[in-house]
Amino acid sequence: MFQRLALIGIGLIGSSIALRARKEGLAEHIAVQSRRAETVATARHLGLGDSYTTDPAEAVEGADLVILCVPVGAVGALTEAIAPHLAPGATVSDVGSVKSAVVAEMAPRLPENVHFVPSHPIAGTEHSGPEAGFAELFEGRWCVLTPPPGTDAQAVEKLSEFWRRLGSSVEVMEPHHHDMVLAITSHVPHLIAYNIVGTAAHLAEVTESEVMKFAAGGFRDFTRIAASDPVMWRDIFLNNREAVLEMLGRFNEDLTALQRAIRWGDGETLFNLFTRTRSIRRGIIEAGQETADPDFGRHKKS
Amino acid sequence: MFQRLALIGIGLIGSSIALRARKEGLAEHIAVQSRRAETVATARHLGLGDSYTTDPAEAVEGADLVILCVPVGAVGALTEAIAPHLAPGATVSDVGSVKSAVVAEMAPRLPENVHFVPSHPIAGTEHSGPEAGFAELFEGRWCVLTPPPGTDAQAVEKLSEFWRRLGSSVEVMEPHHHDMVLAITSHVPHLIAYNIVGTAAHLAEVTESEVMKFAAGGFRDFTRIAASDPVMWRDIFLNNREAVLEMLGRFNEDLTALQRAIRWGDGETLFNLFTRTRSIRRGIIEAGQETADPDFGRHKKS
Repeated sequence: MFQRLALIGIGLIGSSIALRARKEGLAEHIAVQSRRAETVATARHLGLGDSYTTDPAEAVEGADLVILCVPVGAVGALTEAIAPHLAPGATVSDVGSVKSAVVAEMAPRLPENVHFVPSHPIAGTEHSGPEAGFAELFEGRWCVLTPPPGTDAQAVEKLSEFWRRLGSSVEVMEPHHHDMVLAITSHVPHLIAYNIVGTAAHLAEVTESEVMKFAAGGFRDFTRIAASDPVMWRDIFLNNREAVLEMLGRFNEDLTALQRAIRWGDGETLFNLFTRTRSIRRGIIEAGQETADPDFGRHKKS
Repeated sequence: MFQRLALIGIGLIGSSIALRARKEGLAEHIAVQSRRAETVATARHLGLGDSYTTDPAEAVEGADLVILCVPVGAVGALTEAIAPHLAPGATVSDVGSVKSAVVAEMAPRLPENVHFVPSHPIAGTEHSGPEAGFAELFEGRWCVLTPPPGTDAQAVEKLSEFWRRLGSSVEVMEPHHHDMVLAITSHVPHLIAYNIVGTAAHLAEVTESEVMKFAAGGFRDFTRIAASDPVMWRDIFLNNREAVLEMLGRFNEDLTALQRAIRWGDGETLFNLFTRTRSIRRGIIEAGQETADPDFGRHKKS
């Protein structure tokens, strides 16, 4: 599909793209870049690409597809660094979890003669770094593209096809709407997971050792998300502030109502909510976005 | 170990006890009771016990171990119903997720000549009912016993051994402390999971179908817990009100601080929290209470 794919950044997402693109034969040459020499060495050791460099300008030279696989806070400076070296007609994309801010950072810095098609694969694990990647990461997951108005339709379709061949389904969305959808389906969930793990770690009445021992009562589910990459997540919250604060406001209103129901012994309100929430999980399982196995399949029935 | 084990209630926990007790030969006779004839028929069909009845008095007749496996809100009336029929010297227990309220409901209603040893196995899945049970449910999980002061030590030890043979480790705790520990490790996590699923389901800007499609960004993790049994969880919140409100207060304070950090662009506060929370998950994995597989093992690396 592409002559030269340049991956700027080679963490969980970059390495998973590299592995799957290689497997499917989507690029003749895969150029791998990372800011840190140590990460470049790891990527080379894992055989993720065909060439390796710490220099983003060198990596994008002659590439017809460039994907920035870095935390959202880093895309502005990197776009600045690669812009003079981009090949005319190249497609430039990213994998950031926030889209309005990424468009605002990247679009003005890119030359006129490239195609800018931001993307966001909704896939990941709590692990990070090039060793964490695997070819099946995008299988059955959605990838959202948010091309600015007037973007070349052929370039959008070609990148869509690239993501489909990585295993994803593709949806095109307006950046602001993407940011609202992700605020509720991803960003606020991460925030409250980080928050409750922090709360539990700082109690005087309950020791950290007790929290760990008795985590199977529900708490442990939150710790997976709260083990996600700190830089990536700091950048997401700083760059999707409005949508996150808006959705967090709704969450807080609803939580206050539940708190009140508990204080006043209003069992009906609790029961009604707890009954309605079951159908959402069924819908997610039916949409192919979750396993139907009890306990995420952690428990093996014999 | 026991002549006759009476299980009052035969949902996920009761049926899992039955299956494992049978496998380990812990009781010569297992008497199964459920309020609903339909559930009794299911239990019979599954071969969970040796005798079946809808009458709790009949089930406990001659039993040397009686375990109430019902929602916390039902233990008072059931204790009332079985009390006159309990065999002298029998051990009476429960599996409720709240202990102060259970002790307050059960202790005054029990005759002097039985041993009351409340218990709480910290194990479960999001599924409920007799079909959901499996013999390995308690394997490697903790069971907390909260015997009132003066309880016969031999009876406590015998019930501890029973739980150990079901696969659990046993810890003895004071009921109030148990309720604080569980409020943070289980009850508040469930409350915020139910809450965010409710919030997501009622947005005007984001459709329910979008929430389901893009749930892999983190939201889906919360839906597992939010699919737990509504009656059981209503009763937990109504019966552990003080500890839940106390821990929820801490959670809210911490969340307000994070909200403020996002509003003011304070990346350092976010980064510091997100870094600290990682070690808690490592501790839980080391304590044998969580899988080390990425994504709970949902993702299969090839």
